[in-house]
Amino acid sequence: MMEYDAVIVGAGIIGLATAYQIKKQRPNDQILLIDKFSAAGQGNTAKSAAMFRCFFSSNTNLTLVNSTVEFFKHVQSLPTADLKLKYVGYLWLLSKKQYGTITPVLASMAQKNLEYSVFEGSELAERLNLRIAVTGNEEARMMGLKDVDKGILVPKAGSIDIDRLVQFYETEIRRMHVEIRYHTEAETILAEPQDSLGIPGEPLFWQESGVTGVDTSSGKIKAKKTIIAAGVWANSLLTKVGIYSSMEPLKRQLFSVKASTPELKQLLHTKGFNKRDSLPFTILPSPKVYMKPALEEEAFWFSYGDHFPRAYQLEEDPQPEENFYRYGIYQVASKYLPQFVGAHPSSSWAGQYALNTIDGQPVIFEQNNLIVVGSCSGSGNMKCDAIGRIAAALYAGEEYAQLYGNERFRVSDLGLKNRNVEPEKLII
Amino acid sequence: MMEYDAVIVGAGIIGLATAYQIKKQRPNDQILLIDKFSAAGQGNTAKSAAMFRCFFSSNTNLTLVNSTVEFFKHVQSLPTADLKLKYVGYLWLLSKKQYGTITPVLASMAQKNLEYSVFEGSELAERLNLRIAVTGNEEARMMGLKDVDKGILVPKAGSIDIDRLVQFYETEIRRMHVEIRYHTEAETILAEPQDSLGIPGEPLFWQESGVTGVDTSSGKIKAKKTIIAAGVWANSLLTKVGIYSSMEPLKRQLFSVKASTPELKQLLHTKGFNKRDSLPFTILPSPKVYMKPALEEEAFWFSYGDHFPRAYQLEEDPQPEENFYRYGIYQVASKYLPQFVGAHPSSSWAGQYALNTIDGQPVIFEQNNLIVVGSCSGSGNMKCDAIGRIAAALYAGEEYAQLYGNERFRVSDLGLKNRNVEPEKLII
Repeated sequence: MMEYDAVIVGAGIIGLATAYQIKKQRPNDQILLIDKFSAAGQGNTAKSAAMFRCFFSSNTNLTLVNSTVEFFKHVQSLPTADLKLKYVGYLWLLSKKQYGTITPVLASMAQKNLEYSVFEGSELAERLNLRIAVTGNEEARMMGLKDVDKGILVPKAGSIDIDRLVQFYETEIRRMHVEIRYHTEAETILAEPQDSLGIPGEPLFWQESGVTGVDTSSGKIKAKKTIIAAGVWANSLLTKVGIYSSMEPLKRQLFSVKASTPELKQLLHTKGFNKRDSLPFTILPSPKVYMKPALEEEAFWFSYGDHFPRAYQLEEDPQPEENFYRYGIYQVASKYLPQFVGAHPSSSWAGQYALNTIDGQPVIFEQNNLIVVGSCSGSGNMKCDAIGRIAAALYAGEEYAQLYGNERFRVSDLGLKNRNVEPEKLII
Repeated sequence: MMEYDAVIVGAGIIGLATAYQIKKQRPNDQILLIDKFSAAGQGNTAKSAAMFRCFFSSNTNLTLVNSTVEFFKHVQSLPTADLKLKYVGYLWLLSKKQYGTITPVLASMAQKNLEYSVFEGSELAERLNLRIAVTGNEEARMMGLKDVDKGILVPKAGSIDIDRLVQFYETEIRRMHVEIRYHTEAETILAEPQDSLGIPGEPLFWQESGVTGVDTSSGKIKAKKTIIAAGVWANSLLTKVGIYSSMEPLKRQLFSVKASTPELKQLLHTKGFNKRDSLPFTILPSPKVYMKPALEEEAFWFSYGDHFPRAYQLEEDPQPEENFYRYGIYQVASKYLPQFVGAHPSSSWAGQYALNTIDGQPVIFEQNNLIVVGSCSGSGNMKCDAIGRIAAALYAGEEYAQLYGNERFRVSDLGLKNRNVEPEKLII
């Protein structure tokens, strides 16, 4: 049987970026990328809101996102690819208390030359027809909503078309002769002794053993290194061989509401926040319901990142919950933005994060010839280039990865043993 | 419906110790302890080797075990309970390289007044009929076994009868009027809004919500605090409400070999290592196969704590694997101790650890009115009293727990957020 240099499980954005970086750095290595779906990026990659922001308190996040967005800019500049990169900005609406808490964080971010501007509530009220004094409403009070005091606008933030990014990667890795097999589901990680003696129950605990590939729906695949980039599906493979990766699947839902009235159209095309005269990606104070301007479809995408008592539970086909919009998102959003009163979603979908329950940042480590790349916690898209490079550096046995723009990143910082990540204070 | 002050899920050693300490400290609180089995301690508690050692490099481990063993001594001194506490000691057999690595650890442990003595390999060879130069044997060489250079004997270490400890706790908590219900399996953790409005899908994300009890095989139980002490079964409850506890179930097997020959009898009753003239609990160099002198049944209990590629996977009725003894433990043990050549287990069983995959130490934290006590990683028995006290302190909202012997322990040190545990260097 042919032995590949590496088999990569998962052709989502992380598996693609990893395959791309490994093959670029090691053009002679035989790389195989497999996925259970019929094409690349068909799992949770396709379901994301595909937003990015170069605005984090944690240096780890900042470095990963910043270099990836610079890479997006580079790709966008190529004649062959249009990622539909749009700098619509992020607009964080904050209560007085929230603004007080966030001020020191903002100050330290200003020192890192992270640009932002502060808007008074009253100005936002006028520009967006935003109701800032929601607590005058009894229902809003009962719901625990807070009045808007200020808004923070972050310009280096926006959206890409994730399908285009997937296409870019797939085209490139095919061009470089990475072999791709779809409809091929990894079922088991192969663990074998270094020197088999043909004894029953091998590998026995006194034998040196390691991962030698994967068994799939279309047979065994042998490889020197096995790379698991399977997102929420990773654990069902990893736990079977006792490899721990700190990941839980967490459902997220998106609801698309058409800008079907003049008031909503006006909101979607609010002038003055960015060059596109678009509403920025907007985050309400608390609960932090957020909405994305989906300009191509003249719509707003709504979501909310809920936690307790939302289950950690792998679902093959997670479904959006009507009540989550109707009694959750709608109730919150329409209090601040009465333009949405009576608005219903025209479509909705749900996916799952691979949440790193420890610190919400990606995990990249090697154990027994197996490399795990994942737990991206919902920000895999905006970090994909950096993550691919770090995984490729680990594959090549290097201590540092060279990120786009030449910044160096210590590979072990995202590992499990000598993990070194800064906690993030600016979470949506 | 009656609301308890606390419902404790799991009457294993940790649930029992927690119930005992809470009720001792808060005699007026209404406490209910439930378990799916027909009696206390019928899960993995019953399957343990029931050993203890007051010999760890980590202060965390040392404090938890030392105070618990002092508590065992106290219980043993009562006229009502005989835990069959036996100080047989731990004997670690070490290769030259291992001894070199462990010397600085031993030096720092000597500074903590932890007693131990060092034996030369040659002396152990004589006393135990131990083959110390195993690498003369080609098979042993191929298996990667190492010659024995030294042995470390730790006297404050031994065994208890875990069933007796379970009985002690059960008798005591019944006497104090803790209510106990067996055959009662927790199926779901109840998560409810603080103020229900009767809206579909409650708790909605904008509502304040928390855990209000458990739904069981015999109906709902309401409680101000819900305490999950369900060992390997905890996660199936916790993940359904998105509470993460850093735990994976890991199978462990024990094989009992009768001392059926004069040579094995002599080994079991080796003189001079302890007052009982018993073989100490003995750990072979590498792989660290270990054996316990099971004096009541004139037998040795063998085991080995294997990892990769052993699965993390909850099993209701884990079974010992014949090949694990035959091609694993037996092959290793009989190379060092030829007395075992031809010896077969007369019985065997398997259980599961609740392994803390991050640092191998217990986890005790509160979230949304739910307290999690677990992830004891196979040393719950020897730490149970301390763990019960720390859980009771958390329940009472105290910053510190008072351990047996009056040492104080900061409750948050075993939590997830401000966790502060020392890594352990002396792992079997």
